[in-house]
Amino acid sequence: MAILVVGSVAFDAVETPSGRRDRCLGGAATYFALAASYLTQVRVIGVVGEDFGPDEERVFVRRKIDTRGIEHVPGKSFFWSGSYMKNLNEAQTLNTELNVFQSFSPKIPAEYQDTEYLFLANIDPVLQEDVRRKMPKVKMVCGDTMNYWIKDHAENLARVLKGLDVLLINDTEVRMLAKDNNLVLAARKVLDMGPKALVVKHGEYGATAFFCERSFAGEKGSITIPFRAPALPLAEVVDPTGAGDSFAGGFFGYIASQPTLTPAVFRRAMFYGSVMGSFAVERFGTERLQQLDPKEIEERFALFRQLSHLE
Amino acid sequence: MAILVVGSVAFDAVETPSGRRDRCLGGAATYFALAASYLTQVRVIGVVGEDFGPDEERVFVRRKIDTRGIEHVPGKSFFWSGSYMKNLNEAQTLNTELNVFQSFSPKIPAEYQDTEYLFLANIDPVLQEDVRRKMPKVKMVCGDTMNYWIKDHAENLARVLKGLDVLLINDTEVRMLAKDNNLVLAARKVLDMGPKALVVKHGEYGATAFFCERSFAGEKGSITIPFRAPALPLAEVVDPTGAGDSFAGGFFGYIASQPTLTPAVFRRAMFYGSVMGSFAVERFGTERLQQLDPKEIEERFALFRQLSHLE
Repeated sequence: MAILVVGSVAFDAVETPSGRRDRCLGGAATYFALAASYLTQVRVIGVVGEDFGPDEERVFVRRKIDTRGIEHVPGKSFFWSGSYMKNLNEAQTLNTELNVFQSFSPKIPAEYQDTEYLFLANIDPVLQEDVRRKMPKVKMVCGDTMNYWIKDHAENLARVLKGLDVLLINDTEVRMLAKDNNLVLAARKVLDMGPKALVVKHGEYGATAFFCERSFAGEKGSITIPFRAPALPLAEVVDPTGAGDSFAGGFFGYIASQPTLTPAVFRRAMFYGSVMGSFAVERFGTERLQQLDPKEIEERFALFRQLSHLE
Repeated sequence: MAILVVGSVAFDAVETPSGRRDRCLGGAATYFALAASYLTQVRVIGVVGEDFGPDEERVFVRRKIDTRGIEHVPGKSFFWSGSYMKNLNEAQTLNTELNVFQSFSPKIPAEYQDTEYLFLANIDPVLQEDVRRKMPKVKMVCGDTMNYWIKDHAENLARVLKGLDVLLINDTEVRMLAKDNNLVLAARKVLDMGPKALVVKHGEYGATAFFCERSFAGEKGSITIPFRAPALPLAEVVDPTGAGDSFAGGFFGYIASQPTLTPAVFRRAMFYGSVMGSFAVERFGTERLQQLDPKEIEERFALFRQLSHLE
């Protein structure tokens, strides 16, 4: 089934110990869409400026991503620049120019109205809520957020969390959102805020899913047992930008591709998330995600199994 | 087969957010021996003072641990006090009194001479090497070390590393030992120093095993693929002291209990390590490890499988 992502389509400038790029196509929605496109049909809602031309459009079209929801307006696209020179695990933001994103008001094309799977990438929770409300036929909603919204827009974020099936955030964010330093206690508190499941991304240590008792992915008799997916130990992380969004794309893309969401599907989705995250960081920007081979994806999935399974 | 551990038998004083203990039986050899005792026969070489009485002896005897190698000398036992109030993941050492440990010269009882499995717990690498040399029948040696020996006793440590089958150290230590911040590159460098395999402990994120190409545990065609064992997400970590030594005890104890070391045995050993580490931190000191039930251990092993396996 088709999946819809709303979020940023942007240009990034990054420097990492492996080199630098002054302008690569980025943004959470771009990473998510490319990663998910290997698993299911993807639709995008976002806004770009006049600097988003045929070359950028082609990146989406080649992956058969539906871009009718990408609005083109006068001005420049969202621009972010960051450095990983000090710490590969955490970007140091050098510059953020919202540009056309500043007045972004998501519009849902008529052709998207039947979407059943919705991903709310990391944007203002007011916009996340707005999109959610405009999509009455959605049957599963996943979302992301970040420290900025957690700290300064808590009330708006709380309304979004109430309507989420799965919240995907990183380690630091879950502890910040719950105001608890213990991962398990923090996860319980976040699940009490609304989401039926919580996926915590630990960077190079993988990701953990926590389920609440009313969870759709709960197994009888073991509904509160979390699930851990490993990350691939990599000799070189070229550019960590977008790893989390790529994880989300692999995760939700796989779920949307399956007829029903069972605990086994949820677990495999966690692995597809890790697989896509591991590809994303192998090259700058979305370079690697633009040209994956389905066979490579299945081989890496098998590698993740070998990496973590007893037999 | 019997396993021999050489290391500290000590008294600890700890404070953690869950409470405090002024005097608990501790020391790396104690944690290791108790954890391994559920899987195989264990022998200990260490030194204690007059404060080590019948109550302490009984802790070992109850677990059928052979204490003939624990030397009793005048004076006080090794004493360590630490605090986890600031950071549950890293002890702040408040006080270390070597006491009788200062002049420790390991003696191997005649009855231990046939030992085939040797664990060199975190002590002076000169003593580690000395014990290794006195045990010609040993067929597998695992060892631990810490930042102090890595920084200030590098040459002595280098000689120990050359003779190790498996080195078990934590995340920070492997990066420090290799002088490389990337885990995979650091692991390769450490494997070049001698060990056939390296087990890196990540605390609450589990542990990763890396194998070198000549590794006994390598699988044909996949010999350099690492293996990741998860840690159990715990709502309360009462006292993290000894988690790493308990991991080592579960890991090596399981290997020693098996007729041959296959890749599958190595993987299950990683899980037994995680299982024992997860029990250790549930109570203060060695309290939890003193009274485990074999059924509990198997149940937790099954839980670790559920936590990490796709089906």
